[in-house]
Amino acid sequence: MIEDREPIRVALLGCGTVGTEVVRLLRDRPEEFAARVGAPVRVTGVAVRRPHKHPELPEELLTTDSASLVDGDVDLVVELIGGIEPARSLLLRALRAGKSVVTANKALLAEYGSELYAAADASGADIYFEASVAGAIPLLRPLRESLAGDRINRVMGIVNGTTNYILSAMDSTGASYSETLEEAGQLGYAEADPTADVDGFDAAAKAAILASLAFHTRVTATDVHREGISGTSAGDITAAQALDRRVKLLAICDRVTDEEGNESVSARVHPAMIPRDHPLAGVGGAFNAVFVEAESAGQLMFYGQGAGGAPTASAVLGDMVAVARNLVVSGKGPRESAHAQLPVRSMGQTPTRYHISLDVADKPGVLSQVASMFNEHDVSISVVRQQGRGAEASLVVVTHTALDAALKSTVEEIARLDAVREVVSVMRVEGELS
Amino acid sequence: MIEDREPIRVALLGCGTVGTEVVRLLRDRPEEFAARVGAPVRVTGVAVRRPHKHPELPEELLTTDSASLVDGDVDLVVELIGGIEPARSLLLRALRAGKSVVTANKALLAEYGSELYAAADASGADIYFEASVAGAIPLLRPLRESLAGDRINRVMGIVNGTTNYILSAMDSTGASYSETLEEAGQLGYAEADPTADVDGFDAAAKAAILASLAFHTRVTATDVHREGISGTSAGDITAAQALDRRVKLLAICDRVTDEEGNESVSARVHPAMIPRDHPLAGVGGAFNAVFVEAESAGQLMFYGQGAGGAPTASAVLGDMVAVARNLVVSGKGPRESAHAQLPVRSMGQTPTRYHISLDVADKPGVLSQVASMFNEHDVSISVVRQQGRGAEASLVVVTHTALDAALKSTVEEIARLDAVREVVSVMRVEGELS
Repeated sequence: MIEDREPIRVALLGCGTVGTEVVRLLRDRPEEFAARVGAPVRVTGVAVRRPHKHPELPEELLTTDSASLVDGDVDLVVELIGGIEPARSLLLRALRAGKSVVTANKALLAEYGSELYAAADASGADIYFEASVAGAIPLLRPLRESLAGDRINRVMGIVNGTTNYILSAMDSTGASYSETLEEAGQLGYAEADPTADVDGFDAAAKAAILASLAFHTRVTATDVHREGISGTSAGDITAAQALDRRVKLLAICDRVTDEEGNESVSARVHPAMIPRDHPLAGVGGAFNAVFVEAESAGQLMFYGQGAGGAPTASAVLGDMVAVARNLVVSGKGPRESAHAQLPVRSMGQTPTRYHISLDVADKPGVLSQVASMFNEHDVSISVVRQQGRGAEASLVVVTHTALDAALKSTVEEIARLDAVREVVSVMRVEGELS
Repeated sequence: MIEDREPIRVALLGCGTVGTEVVRLLRDRPEEFAARVGAPVRVTGVAVRRPHKHPELPEELLTTDSASLVDGDVDLVVELIGGIEPARSLLLRALRAGKSVVTANKALLAEYGSELYAAADASGADIYFEASVAGAIPLLRPLRESLAGDRINRVMGIVNGTTNYILSAMDSTGASYSETLEEAGQLGYAEADPTADVDGFDAAAKAAILASLAFHTRVTATDVHREGISGTSAGDITAAQALDRRVKLLAICDRVTDEEGNESVSARVHPAMIPRDHPLAGVGGAFNAVFVEAESAGQLMFYGQGAGGAPTASAVLGDMVAVARNLVVSGKGPRESAHAQLPVRSMGQTPTRYHISLDVADKPGVLSQVASMFNEHDVSISVVRQQGRGAEASLVVVTHTALDAALKSTVEEIARLDAVREVVSVMRVEGELS
């Protein structure tokens, strides 16, 4: 009988929304988990800061002493504290003692992933972290395992729900960023301190994790170019609408091959205009969606809920089952795969496309002045749209692909032209053929 | 050095489009595969029917003797022959000898999956089959592993490219089924004998595999209710369009809970009308897309290329890397998970919804006659639309959810009513709230 086998003993670090759901499901369906794992799975301790806040848990499970819990008789440590410390020290302690780890901690993975992997490898323990990116969407396992025989060229997706909510709302109401942020806070879609979301830190950590797995290369959060949405104006949204596009905060990881055939990678997070009929354009609210382009597999898309207690618990529990199964059959999950060690490009050296919307004086020669600026920087123009209105005119330019640094300095010089009254909107363009 | 380790020796059974691509990629990038696996991966033999048809392969690799190849010094057998025999015997032979298996053979898995699992389990070998459903889309690994801690309630998707091509073409041209099939054959979208695709055998095998994994229950192809698209008329397509819907051939696997809380499962393949703004409605041509609804994860979607040499090779190679890694670290992939053993419902006992389009005499009382038929069978009506045109009128009814048998017999009785001149279209409705 499976029920009679030695149980897999689980220590939970942190017990907020996700942890509560994990414990509830494990305790509601012990037979189901035992059958899937091949042994009972038992929560033997839960470390929390304030035990009296958890009346739903048996008192004897609760402790405030995380370190002793990790050091005790446990096989698997599930970390749901978040942030760097004390999570990092606790997980290293667990891994060094040969205890496997499941974590949803994107910040920790993005910064100290290699250190954790190394500790796991040295002791033979497992580390799984599906919940750290895109909540319930099975994304990391497909990247780490299903596509292990393929060559991934691009990962692009919406991986932050708060910014996606704000941008969608701005698109439908026409309101400003600050108004919309305030409203999002009142409705519970943005946290009291929304910095991690709106300044792109959350998405950048996820981009680092995705790029590392996709390209078999160590990419940390500091390698990721990061622009949030606080600079996105109602004017940007209107400019996008005029071109039948939508503004989305995207995490983009690219494999870039130069003319000599040398490969490098780039990882970035920034708002971008995508065509309104692009599948990512329709992704609303709390949903996440990620495109993966691989050499043999072609284009794949993964879609689902990116956050929330139950969806994240689903990902955590899936990892727990995998680790527990490995313990039962003496298996071993995937290790760090950083054999490619490709160099990481700076944003300036990354190929992108720009949309630029200008208010210009309505007189002959303006377009040619602007066009010659692009020419000087070797940037080729894809579309120009000129519209007069009284003494002023608007000029919209969409470029072909060029290095971001060249595009940026072109825009800076154009802004200094006498005939240019205002640079209304500058935004990168994604999701269509160049 | 990884290159100096004992290689993982691979035998390939069958070498068509997919096999050729698998061999090419393995030989083009030996270092990449070695790095991902932790040992070199070497093809040591390829069994084919006509060796002279494979000038691209070194002669010493080729053999016509599959059985000896399987019996020889190999660690991993990759089966790309398709069909039941000799594939089944060869794979059982391999598994019984402790050799792991990667296969893309949906028909075999759907019929003899349990037998193969048992053989694998007895000898400690692995069996992986990601390529058997939805080509390159990582779908089985997420179901088997990522969602192992969740409870899947539904899997619904487009898993056959040929029928999807035909139905899309009928939708855009208004042509009949037989005309469109002929054209699809000429364009290479349908095989010379299209039975497996158009009669739903291919999709039913995939539905059996999906239902087995999703519900931890043995479901074979014969358990799957199967209706193909050969009965789908231009009238059905027009009727769907009139309701702003599209006709798609869907594979649907449901967990059904009755009033007493008893669970069972149902698996079926049939054409159905889905709303035009449903994500599956936009899936065209050779693409596949599958929705998964899980209790905690909520709604997930997986999208990508469902067939073709390179996409299928991607899935096969991903499995090969997983098996080879397991061999290197003495790991073990997931086993059969059939612990739930839920009963499989017949189609008659499966809850569905119907759309019925009738040509009726344009006189008072027809609607009430039709409505009373539904009433007698305890079927509740969601929408009725009545349109007069001269002496005739059309009546469109969309029901609420009811057992399929009740719906079916209601339609039979309605067809016998004097006032009903013709049953123009009967089709199930999916993808919206009941």
